[in-house]
Amino acid sequence: MSVLVVGTLALDYIETPWDKTDKVLGGSATYISVAARLFTEPVGMVAVAGRDFPEAHKQLLISKGIDLSGLQEFSDQDTFAWGGRYHDDVNVRDTLFTHLNALAEFDPVVPDVYQNSKVVCLGNLSPDIQAATLNQLNTRGFIACDTMNYWITNTPEALREILAQIDCLLINDEEAYQMTGEHNLILSARKILTLGPRILVIKKGEHGAMLFADEQIFTVPGFPLDKVSDPTGAGDSFLGAFAGSLACEPHIGLDALKRAVIYGASVASFCVETLGPFQLVKTPPAAVEERAKLFRGLTEWPVSHERQEA
Amino acid sequence: MSVLVVGTLALDYIETPWDKTDKVLGGSATYISVAARLFTEPVGMVAVAGRDFPEAHKQLLISKGIDLSGLQEFSDQDTFAWGGRYHDDVNVRDTLFTHLNALAEFDPVVPDVYQNSKVVCLGNLSPDIQAATLNQLNTRGFIACDTMNYWITNTPEALREILAQIDCLLINDEEAYQMTGEHNLILSARKILTLGPRILVIKKGEHGAMLFADEQIFTVPGFPLDKVSDPTGAGDSFLGAFAGSLACEPHIGLDALKRAVIYGASVASFCVETLGPFQLVKTPPAAVEERAKLFRGLTEWPVSHERQEA
Repeated sequence: MSVLVVGTLALDYIETPWDKTDKVLGGSATYISVAARLFTEPVGMVAVAGRDFPEAHKQLLISKGIDLSGLQEFSDQDTFAWGGRYHDDVNVRDTLFTHLNALAEFDPVVPDVYQNSKVVCLGNLSPDIQAATLNQLNTRGFIACDTMNYWITNTPEALREILAQIDCLLINDEEAYQMTGEHNLILSARKILTLGPRILVIKKGEHGAMLFADEQIFTVPGFPLDKVSDPTGAGDSFLGAFAGSLACEPHIGLDALKRAVIYGASVASFCVETLGPFQLVKTPPAAVEERAKLFRGLTEWPVSHERQEA
Repeated sequence: MSVLVVGTLALDYIETPWDKTDKVLGGSATYISVAARLFTEPVGMVAVAGRDFPEAHKQLLISKGIDLSGLQEFSDQDTFAWGGRYHDDVNVRDTLFTHLNALAEFDPVVPDVYQNSKVVCLGNLSPDIQAATLNQLNTRGFIACDTMNYWITNTPEALREILAQIDCLLINDEEAYQMTGEHNLILSARKILTLGPRILVIKKGEHGAMLFADEQIFTVPGFPLDKVSDPTGAGDSFLGAFAGSLACEPHIGLDALKRAVIYGASVASFCVETLGPFQLVKTPPAAVEERAKLFRGLTEWPVSHERQEA
């Protein structure tokens, strides 16, 4: 396996100021896998679906080239369901409901064909499930991990054990503040890097992302979009693209990490263009590559040989 | 004159979670002029001081090489005074008081020696005073202008008249939202560019800044600082460095504007390192140049010739 993903499959209810949708294909495993598959194959998913998970959603994942050998299907439970409402300022959202359903009893099983994966993505779910996945791996590859405020607050010990086992943590700025109690992002990052991961990516929504690795900092701006239709899955698709990009690299050093962050920002920017994962699933790799190149125009500037200084 | 600055001289009361100070030298004209003078000379200030303005503050400005021919000194009024308190999250501040004092009756007079300035900085003060300054200029040079929420709300017509006369507006993201009613920064920028300025810089504090010019977008990250002691004057020193940098350029095109934004971010990052303007006044041009170079490390990444794509 090139990229192994463990995460949630979800039926999402999403409401934005412009639109809403119900029971749309969602969950961290969905967005991560589809994004990773833009770069590499095979990409395999360890996840759980319930009796109400539409066959069409499953077929969509298969059509996107995702290996579902690690998918468990529960016949006596519904699928994990999440509902959220975004404000006029789409950076602000209310969680309307979180029904764990099948996820509450999920005991991940890593298929043999997923062993020796080059990159392992621990998508946002309980640190216990993340740990149970890691524990089944013969070799660990490069481990990239997401988490969220719920686990930071409610399962700090389990989260701490995971942090000690991963290569790279990817979280957003609010989560970084919450994890460390620091309001300054640089101090916050330094503290997190003492907890286990040697690499940290802090995602800042429209403000882009920061990479902390090898005592260096790299920044990527948010791709300028005149409409963000739905931020759902932006962080997950960033993680998937980051992982997929790293899986293409012969050596995962600082330069490879920088490229992975650029690709993460590029794919996330497609993800948010429509409600649900529909823009993400129809974006071709060439479009991702093209947009990644546009980041150079956003960030590069020439030296001058004609300036007259004081 | 290389750079003409009109703005406020102030006695600031500043309180942060770590420190406080009273009657410290402040005001937009102070920060803009000192920052511009890091790049070019002469830099001249049109401003007003009251009877309580300490001679030491005046001598500090003179020692930094600022031309004070345009300074008016009122013997029957106190100096403009501003008080602010920053929260633990230094991006949040409360204004404690604003005493206009001498500023209420300020009628700017541009000295003859300030005519034909290459760059004119309209620092944050009433649009009427900004207009009264512009109206005295024989030739206008490149006009860069700041404003704030107070003028956006209370003097929209006067502000609109100024916007029609300037080359470049520099405001922060909150002001851009307030000016346009748009939550999306790109849409907001597009609307502002229909109001007069052909160039727009939106400052985003720790998230850096964005330049909109020639239908292109350029971004600079915030310089990573593990402590922001006092954000007072960050926006003003950005404007001053931006203006000073442009004054060094034989041609003010897109590349020159990009460099000016990098220097703006560099100087602003020094400004916030201590309470008041004290770090700014002691920063040498070589340090600014050195930090500007560090922005390349923050934003540049290499292409790969070894990646294996799917």
